[in-house]
Amino acid sequence: MDKKKAVGRRSVLFNHPPVIIGAGSVAGEKEGQGAFGKYYDMVESDPLFGAQTWEEAESKMQQLAAQVALRKAGLEPKEVRYLVAGDLLGQLIATSFGIMNFNIPMFGVYGACSTMGESLVIGSMLVDGGYGDYVMALTSSHFASAEKQFRYPLAYGNQRPYSATWTVTGSGAVVLASSEARWKRKEVGYVEVRGATTGIITDYGIKDSMNMGACMAPAAADCILNNFKDMGVGPDYYDRIITGDLGTIGQKILVDMMQGYGYDIEKQHFDCGTEIYYNEEQDTNAGGSGCGCSAITLCGFILQKMRKNQWKRVLFVPTGALLSTVSFNEGNSIPGIAHGVMLEAVAGTQTEKEL
Amino acid sequence: MDKKKAVGRRSVLFNHPPVIIGAGSVAGEKEGQGAFGKYYDMVESDPLFGAQTWEEAESKMQQLAAQVALRKAGLEPKEVRYLVAGDLLGQLIATSFGIMNFNIPMFGVYGACSTMGESLVIGSMLVDGGYGDYVMALTSSHFASAEKQFRYPLAYGNQRPYSATWTVTGSGAVVLASSEARWKRKEVGYVEVRGATTGIITDYGIKDSMNMGACMAPAAADCILNNFKDMGVGPDYYDRIITGDLGTIGQKILVDMMQGYGYDIEKQHFDCGTEIYYNEEQDTNAGGSGCGCSAITLCGFILQKMRKNQWKRVLFVPTGALLSTVSFNEGNSIPGIAHGVMLEAVAGTQTEKEL
Repeated sequence: MDKKKAVGRRSVLFNHPPVIIGAGSVAGEKEGQGAFGKYYDMVESDPLFGAQTWEEAESKMQQLAAQVALRKAGLEPKEVRYLVAGDLLGQLIATSFGIMNFNIPMFGVYGACSTMGESLVIGSMLVDGGYGDYVMALTSSHFASAEKQFRYPLAYGNQRPYSATWTVTGSGAVVLASSEARWKRKEVGYVEVRGATTGIITDYGIKDSMNMGACMAPAAADCILNNFKDMGVGPDYYDRIITGDLGTIGQKILVDMMQGYGYDIEKQHFDCGTEIYYNEEQDTNAGGSGCGCSAITLCGFILQKMRKNQWKRVLFVPTGALLSTVSFNEGNSIPGIAHGVMLEAVAGTQTEKEL
Repeated sequence: MDKKKAVGRRSVLFNHPPVIIGAGSVAGEKEGQGAFGKYYDMVESDPLFGAQTWEEAESKMQQLAAQVALRKAGLEPKEVRYLVAGDLLGQLIATSFGIMNFNIPMFGVYGACSTMGESLVIGSMLVDGGYGDYVMALTSSHFASAEKQFRYPLAYGNQRPYSATWTVTGSGAVVLASSEARWKRKEVGYVEVRGATTGIITDYGIKDSMNMGACMAPAAADCILNNFKDMGVGPDYYDRIITGDLGTIGQKILVDMMQGYGYDIEKQHFDCGTEIYYNEEQDTNAGGSGCGCSAITLCGFILQKMRKNQWKRVLFVPTGALLSTVSFNEGNSIPGIAHGVMLEAVAGTQTEKEL
């Protein structure tokens, strides 16, 4: 084993950091009206995306996001060696039906809303490990398919407590390339995946499915803490530490927990869930959630900020609450998991050009 | 990219083939009475495994299988760098709750009944890629939790057509080690993972959830065909080509399809699903299925045969039918996927010793 790759107990640093050469973000109308609306590649006003069911709508979104990412990367589907993808639905049906026609060798993954992190970590390992020049990481969530799967029928119109989050309708796709692969875009700023910290399942016994932030915050804290320890750094090493979808409640818990561990991350911390909507005006209570939340924020807003060199180092930490109606109805708690991805911007000569 | 690793369109050959240093198989009573009963590490007569719910029972099985594999590998959980694991249940709850207490950094995967293949492929890539000395691949299925999730309540006692398979109650765990890792067992025969062929999603439009073999056979044929092409070999290269859980119907379709592609695999082909039960006596119709089917057959029977050098080269092809009640009830077909793992036995000096 190349000892340099494994760092500490939970992290890796890549010998040949994979480069993000294309990213696609597709969002619903409500997301388009949110804080990052102008950063998404596509905003679709039809919540069904022209399909007959919510699940098919989500599949369509994945298809669109993948197509945008491939176009930006200048690749045909057959040039992509592996697809690492998943979603929130049982048996990952949004993914299976969404990406079938690309005929890309496929690894289905599930990490609840941390899936963008999990797929980026595995995808980067496959690229840096030498198994493929191009690998795609892809995920999605859809408000309506998620409510159907996890909560109440939409028509029931149930009330939502202030701690509840709103599942983001969106899909994000990232094409990772090996540093040695043919890649023509070095004139513009680009983003590398430098390393990763893999999550463990963390369970503080929270049983409130309307307060997912509280379920996930301990997993985020554990992941960030272990990244600091393994890398021998503190919050100042990063320009931003970006969690997936803790929302306003989970964000507070995370900052408090990190304080307890001796780290003040308030200056660097940014939560996609808290920021993706205008919560008061859009009636989204504690914020956004779902795999799509961190995925479209990464593929839209975050990568643009990094490519313009406004942020150089970002620790991207998608967070997942392992909620299932079956285990939940049987009285179980909702454990969490979070995966950390160390992103670093490399300045180009034409920093203003669009990727 | 180390060009030697990527072979053809869909396969890899490992530079430093990971070694299987421990395997654990836990089975239910019906499986214990089947053809490979004496090969399992544990057969439990209580279908609830001492738990209160079917889902918890499945979690317990995963825990037991992991413990057996760790014991045989001579490792503590904290020495395992990654766990690549999943199951059939929505949001992988059998896995989340089963392995939580091991505190191993975790990648959740879903490939329906092909999950043992997917987890072995990703796990081997992580070991060969240099990200960890020890990685565990783990999966399970449980007859009762699967029937509850996918079909009818057990108490309803519905009739089963001849094409239906019986979901195996069982869990299999494999510990993979890098060839350079501390490893004390070279005196006995051992099994290496030499390479892999990753599956694509294959859909021939089959909509019969009581004939999963037909849904999966095209995926198996595609995977085996691509392995042959990429490696430049034919069926004779392998002592056995072992599919996951096609059952008697799917097996026939696979052999026919391969014949159509110009390959006669009948001599080498062996299907875990067809063989795991005494189908007539045990009333299991077309055979066994579920993630546990190929997992316990690998961890019990197949690895023993290989370690005793009765089979040297095995292409292990777990097969998955991406069935979801949601997509199924919406009128969709059941696509399939299959992942191929190239196993090779290395003879030891004490071939009779138990691993």
